[in-house]
Amino acid sequence: MVTNHGMINFQTSPDHYKHWKLSFEGPVARVTMDVQEDETLNDGYKLKLNSYDLGVDIELADAIQRIRFEHPEVRAVVLTSLKPRIFCAGANIYMLGTSSHAFKVNFCKFTNETRCAIEDDSRASGRRYIAALNGTASGGGYELAIACDEIYLVDDGNSAVSLPEVPLLGVLPGTGGLTRLVDKRKIRRDRADVFSTLAEGLKGKRAKEWGLIDDTFTTSKFPESIEQRVAQIVDSREAKKATGKDAGEPQAGMPALRGIKLNPLQVTSAEHNRDYRYVSLRFHRDKRCVDLIVRSPESDLPATADEIQKLGDDYWPLRAYRELDDALLHLRVNEPEVGLLCIRTEGSIDNVLAVDKTLGANRDHWLIREIVLQMARVLRRLDLTAKSFFSIIEPGSCFAGNLFELVLASDRSYMLNNPDETVEVALSELNTGAFPMSNGLTRLQSRFLAEPKKAYEAFAHEGRFDTEAADDAGLVTFAPDDLDWDDEIRLAIEERTSLSPDALTGMEASLRFAGPETMDTKIYGRLTAWQNWIFQRPNAVGPNGALTNYGKPTQAQFDFKRT
Amino acid sequence: MVTNHGMINFQTSPDHYKHWKLSFEGPVARVTMDVQEDETLNDGYKLKLNSYDLGVDIELADAIQRIRFEHPEVRAVVLTSLKPRIFCAGANIYMLGTSSHAFKVNFCKFTNETRCAIEDDSRASGRRYIAALNGTASGGGYELAIACDEIYLVDDGNSAVSLPEVPLLGVLPGTGGLTRLVDKRKIRRDRADVFSTLAEGLKGKRAKEWGLIDDTFTTSKFPESIEQRVAQIVDSREAKKATGKDAGEPQAGMPALRGIKLNPLQVTSAEHNRDYRYVSLRFHRDKRCVDLIVRSPESDLPATADEIQKLGDDYWPLRAYRELDDALLHLRVNEPEVGLLCIRTEGSIDNVLAVDKTLGANRDHWLIREIVLQMARVLRRLDLTAKSFFSIIEPGSCFAGNLFELVLASDRSYMLNNPDETVEVALSELNTGAFPMSNGLTRLQSRFLAEPKKAYEAFAHEGRFDTEAADDAGLVTFAPDDLDWDDEIRLAIEERTSLSPDALTGMEASLRFAGPETMDTKIYGRLTAWQNWIFQRPNAVGPNGALTNYGKPTQAQFDFKRT
Repeated sequence: MVTNHGMINFQTSPDHYKHWKLSFEGPVARVTMDVQEDETLNDGYKLKLNSYDLGVDIELADAIQRIRFEHPEVRAVVLTSLKPRIFCAGANIYMLGTSSHAFKVNFCKFTNETRCAIEDDSRASGRRYIAALNGTASGGGYELAIACDEIYLVDDGNSAVSLPEVPLLGVLPGTGGLTRLVDKRKIRRDRADVFSTLAEGLKGKRAKEWGLIDDTFTTSKFPESIEQRVAQIVDSREAKKATGKDAGEPQAGMPALRGIKLNPLQVTSAEHNRDYRYVSLRFHRDKRCVDLIVRSPESDLPATADEIQKLGDDYWPLRAYRELDDALLHLRVNEPEVGLLCIRTEGSIDNVLAVDKTLGANRDHWLIREIVLQMARVLRRLDLTAKSFFSIIEPGSCFAGNLFELVLASDRSYMLNNPDETVEVALSELNTGAFPMSNGLTRLQSRFLAEPKKAYEAFAHEGRFDTEAADDAGLVTFAPDDLDWDDEIRLAIEERTSLSPDALTGMEASLRFAGPETMDTKIYGRLTAWQNWIFQRPNAVGPNGALTNYGKPTQAQFDFKRT
Repeated sequence: MVTNHGMINFQTSPDHYKHWKLSFEGPVARVTMDVQEDETLNDGYKLKLNSYDLGVDIELADAIQRIRFEHPEVRAVVLTSLKPRIFCAGANIYMLGTSSHAFKVNFCKFTNETRCAIEDDSRASGRRYIAALNGTASGGGYELAIACDEIYLVDDGNSAVSLPEVPLLGVLPGTGGLTRLVDKRKIRRDRADVFSTLAEGLKGKRAKEWGLIDDTFTTSKFPESIEQRVAQIVDSREAKKATGKDAGEPQAGMPALRGIKLNPLQVTSAEHNRDYRYVSLRFHRDKRCVDLIVRSPESDLPATADEIQKLGDDYWPLRAYRELDDALLHLRVNEPEVGLLCIRTEGSIDNVLAVDKTLGANRDHWLIREIVLQMARVLRRLDLTAKSFFSIIEPGSCFAGNLFELVLASDRSYMLNNPDETVEVALSELNTGAFPMSNGLTRLQSRFLAEPKKAYEAFAHEGRFDTEAADDAGLVTFAPDDLDWDDEIRLAIEERTSLSPDALTGMEASLRFAGPETMDTKIYGRLTAWQNWIFQRPNAVGPNGALTNYGKPTQAQFDFKRT
């Protein structure tokens, strides 16, 4: 995963997996954890007991993604472990103990996004995730289980589910654990309190009684019980298909779904550039700034689902957004000092809108649905990235439809106002709901909370928006004229990148998510923010802290002042 | 405010105010800020330009409270400044720069609670708060304004509203500022981004255009414009009264409302005790634990609003909850090492239920309404206190009705199961909605998110609950029998107070607020958690941090890694 330049690479494929086995049997996928303890992303720790580091989670994220695109026939996904008596011991403590604060934060964010992607697949595509805990699931291991729809624990007299972070490590179960306890499984808060302070956790019977798992089976019955449950799920899904309730799936009797292959992205890197087919990064590291350029699709893209299926992962919406996703992840972990992304687009508004029309017309097709959901996830990854985003809208740009979401996702946007040149933006039907934010709203809804009718007016607008129309409609922040343009952009960049990076992170996390809250926003807002706070506290990471002293003969010593 | 033992005292009264003038004229109250720069709570800073420290905010909180109880006739509250050209410069930077992390966090929490109390008065009691900004409102100054219903700024060519925390100090406008920008005033997020990074802020015209203020008036027109607006409010409120729409207010023609006096609480302190009339603290500092004991009301309390009005602040619900409030604040700032409160009650369940019956029957009366709202605020203060709470339910206790909220607010509860002794708890109608949490739910709703019918079943239960019935109904966490009781309580206390205090704070803040989110929970969850994180970052508080270097000839130097 670490390239020869010490950079972390987020691309992988099953042939290269070190820690997971991915297998398919008709409508059932099995994602089996078998972490190789020496195959770590960094030195200084071993991945014992199916504990994980970022490398393990990059493979898991890839596996989930491939199930969706390469195996659409799958209705049930079983997560389990190849190791005896242990499902997963969670994030590796020694890895956490030796990581920088910034790395810990980015690691947790990525693992959270992977778990949210599991729930996105379940909610939006109807695949059912089964955590088959054939051994103990502790910490992040249980947090992975609780991201699944159903949890079954072996009753072998020993195996348990637990969240030992608070009692053993002085940190939180911050990969969604605390939030999902009370908000997803709706465990009574006093029981959640007991469970989250009980290092040894709870075994089958009590865990089921409290709602932490769905059922428990003896060792001998465990495999067949899981298979029975999986068969039930598959059968009921088939029945659902037969009644035509799930419009995204083929009707009974239709040919089986065929997936498409996700091929590796082609990327060329140079000192100041990183180029994909449709996405490029141009680094201005002395200014702590990068240009993120997205190029429009070609004009001759197919308009039917069958043709798109044939085109496969070359299809622009899938390719471009996979590239954007990879670029964002790269910037997060490999370019920590880049504080500002100037988002630019190049190409044809017509071509972007043509793609949106095709996507909109074919959303009932499984592949189009998955492509749109993937675009939505990438845009949410952008919302959650701790960098500033300015959209720069100039002649030749193509901020339309799905690419206009980049403007709406930006902290600010600048649109050139020059009567002598054509500068335009445009909306498409995809802006009305295809790309929900983590808070469940569209970005236009979030933008116009004070005046919801402005979102409708923007849609009712005939054709494209020139700069004045966009400004009047409230779609852009500033519309400087040609004389001021260069200075205003330059000053805005200089000013932004001079500010405290921490204050900006907290500010952006607060301003980007107005309106309602969801489990996702709670995880990224409340839970993550508290975890980040704790990740800096001497009681966790100081020389006498619990995280620092875990597994050592020395014991943690706390400053007991409650804060 | 600081007693001779160096402790902070949260009690005050207008006779003792140093920083505010409180005046009344019929239905209008004026709360005027005139901070005395040398009257600080601690050494090492001066409160220039109407900047504030905790002492200033304790007076403001007292003023709001007194308006509600002592001047129920007030319909409009005008907040303004006696200083020329400055409304309020926000929290004093040098005070923040010299305060411990724990103090900063507690200071911000209290100031947040004061601003939420303003909004509670507006929402629940219909008083309208007007921020009359006769000069610049920066940082916490604007955050105070934005907690009001309406904001008017003088247009004198100089005065502005601003949130300079991010650009000048490297911290957040964490006293609700960021949240209220986008969630209360629903400012467009890109404009909120610009405003929050603009040290000098915005003056009248642009501030109005962006929705940051409601209007702006020239210096000469400012006083009369405010008076006109206040007169409009008072007139429309009178009209509302005449139509009988506001059931909590007297009908037109009824005698004017008379307030009741809030007298000082009597408290005696010794090394291991702190005793109020109905509330006592028993310290076990070696165990980092305190017993919080609440005693039931007497049996002969009045049952009509008129009699209660005559009794005034001696009436148990008002007195006991004022005492509880003071005890919680005392523990927060003066006893930081106390990590666990064991809540106990003593007295008569009948007497508590009788009080609840009286409160329930008279909620249309202004005084009863204010008393119940005050109880609700105190219970929310408890929810937001960064200490663990265990309720201990034993023979002789009176956890019934309003006092049962203490059990529901606790992280856990232990109820003795001994057939030879009477141990009971009870619900009253006040548990159905009189005491909403910050998330807008009752504590019973929050407890039974997974099974809402359990809340209804608990109400449908005839009479009191003995231990088994309470356990069956899911109302308590554990019901140990007599043999195990002492050991189980002792071990639970020892275990709890051995855990990392920081991890507990983050865990409790996550588990206590399941379900929906509101502006309040966003402020205390997301915004506060991010601010606390930033308050530890070297970029803010390190030797080269922005907060540390504010006002010095040296400049902040940032580590620009984005996290």
